[in-house]
Amino acid sequence: MDEADLSRDAFLGGRLMILQPRQGYRAGVDPVLLAASVPARAGQSVLELGCGVGVASLCLAARVAGLDLAGVEIQADYAYLARRNAAQTGHALHVETADLTHLPGSLRQRQFDHVIANPPYFQRDRSMPARDKGRETALGEGTALADWVEVAARRVVDGGHVTFIQRAERLPELIAVMTQRLGSVEVLPFAPRRGRAAQLVLIRGRKGGRAAFRLLDPVLMHEGATHDGDRDDYTALVTSVLRDGAALPF
Amino acid sequence: MDEADLSRDAFLGGRLMILQPRQGYRAGVDPVLLAASVPARAGQSVLELGCGVGVASLCLAARVAGLDLAGVEIQADYAYLARRNAAQTGHALHVETADLTHLPGSLRQRQFDHVIANPPYFQRDRSMPARDKGRETALGEGTALADWVEVAARRVVDGGHVTFIQRAERLPELIAVMTQRLGSVEVLPFAPRRGRAAQLVLIRGRKGGRAAFRLLDPVLMHEGATHDGDRDDYTALVTSVLRDGAALPF
Repeated sequence: MDEADLSRDAFLGGRLMILQPRQGYRAGVDPVLLAASVPARAGQSVLELGCGVGVASLCLAARVAGLDLAGVEIQADYAYLARRNAAQTGHALHVETADLTHLPGSLRQRQFDHVIANPPYFQRDRSMPARDKGRETALGEGTALADWVEVAARRVVDGGHVTFIQRAERLPELIAVMTQRLGSVEVLPFAPRRGRAAQLVLIRGRKGGRAAFRLLDPVLMHEGATHDGDRDDYTALVTSVLRDGAALPF
Repeated sequence: MDEADLSRDAFLGGRLMILQPRQGYRAGVDPVLLAASVPARAGQSVLELGCGVGVASLCLAARVAGLDLAGVEIQADYAYLARRNAAQTGHALHVETADLTHLPGSLRQRQFDHVIANPPYFQRDRSMPARDKGRETALGEGTALADWVEVAARRVVDGGHVTFIQRAERLPELIAVMTQRLGSVEVLPFAPRRGRAAQLVLIRGRKGGRAAFRLLDPVLMHEGATHDGDRDDYTALVTSVLRDGAALPF
C-alpha cells in the first residue's frame, strides 16, 4: 500500500495517532468502545481476533499499562499497519497475519485472559459486496460469526472473558453462540438517543460462567432528541470514553 | 376451590375485578403489560396460551372492543375462574381446559391474528418447586419454552403477531426459538429504574416477517434511583398502563 493512500487519524483525543488506509475499512467509534469495556488488569493477556490496523488493542494498551497483547488479522496490509501503529505508539502488540480459523501454532498453544473482537458487520447474503477489497473483507464476513465465537472460546482461559461488539441486529446469532460456548452472558446496548432502538451491542461471556443472562441499560451515544446540526452532541459518558480514554462500565 | 380461598382483585384502576386464588399463582403487573402491548384491532382474533384466570385477555378486551378472544389453560380450576371472570366483566373470552401441546380440535382448526403468552418463569432444573400445586404449575414450566413458541407460531396467521412476556434471564432461549419460527423479532425490555439491568422482556415476532431484529429502549418501571418508602413511584407511562388501561407503545 502506497504511503499516499494512508491517513493518520487521532483516537482518544489525540493520545493515539493511527495509520489506516484512506479507502477501505476505516475504524470508527466501535473499536474504541470495545476497548473501553474490557475489564483487563496489568499483567493480563489479551487476544484480538480480526484486529485490522490495531485500534481496539492499542486503545486498550493506552488505558491499561502492562498488558500482553496479541492480534490476528487476515489481511496482510492491515496487519502490517497494525505493527507500524504499535511501534509508533510505543505499545507492545504482537500481530500475526492469519485466518482466525487457522491460527499459527504460537497462538494455538496459548490461552488468554481476554479475547476481544469487532467482527465484520454485514452478512454477505444480505448486502452488496463493497468495491474496495480491504473494506469488503473487513465488512463482508468470510468467516461465520459462530466461528469467531468458537475460536474466542477456545483461546480464552477458564474464567476469562470474551467481549465482542456488533450491530444490534446480529444479537440473536451472537447470543445463541455465546450462550452455547460461554456462560454469564451480558449485553450492553448502545442506542443513538433516548427512546431509540439499539444500534450496537457489546456482548460478553465468561468461560465456565454460570450466572443468569443479563440485559443492561443502554448507553446513549448522543444527548437530546435530534441531531443539532454539526454540533458534537455525544453524551458525557461517551465523550469521556472517546476523548479521554476512560473505561466504560460493563 | 372454595369461595373462601378466592380473592377479588382490582386491575386497570378497578375497571376489571378479577377472582383468583388467595394462595398459588397470583397475577401481577406482567399480564397487564403484555395485554397493553398487543397491537390488536376490533374484529381481530386473539389466542392466549396458559391464560390462568384470564387477566391478560380480559385487560386486552377492556382496551380494545370487538375482539374474538380464546384462552387455553391446563389447570381446570384456573380455567374455571377465567370463565367466571369473563362472565362477570362482560367480556367474551372462550376458555378451553387443555395442555397447550394437545389443543382441542376447536382450536387446532383455527388460526389467530395474535397469540399471546406469559409462560412460567422458572426452569424446573434451576429452582425449587413451589409448595402450592397451582403456583407450581404456573411457575414451574412443565412445558418447554420452545413448545410454547412452536404452538404459538402454528396457531398464528401469516403476518400475525406472537407476543410473550418473560423474565429477562430467559431472553436467550426466547430469542433463539422466536427467530427460528417467526421473523421481524423485537424485544422491549422493562428495567426497574434507570441504569439497572432489565428484569422483564416483551418479545414479539411476526409470522413470515423479514425485518432485522430490533432491541428497543427499555421501559422504566419506577421513577428515581431508589425506592422511596411505601410511595407508589411507577413512572407516568407505567401508571397509564396499569391504572388507566392505556396501550404500551411497542
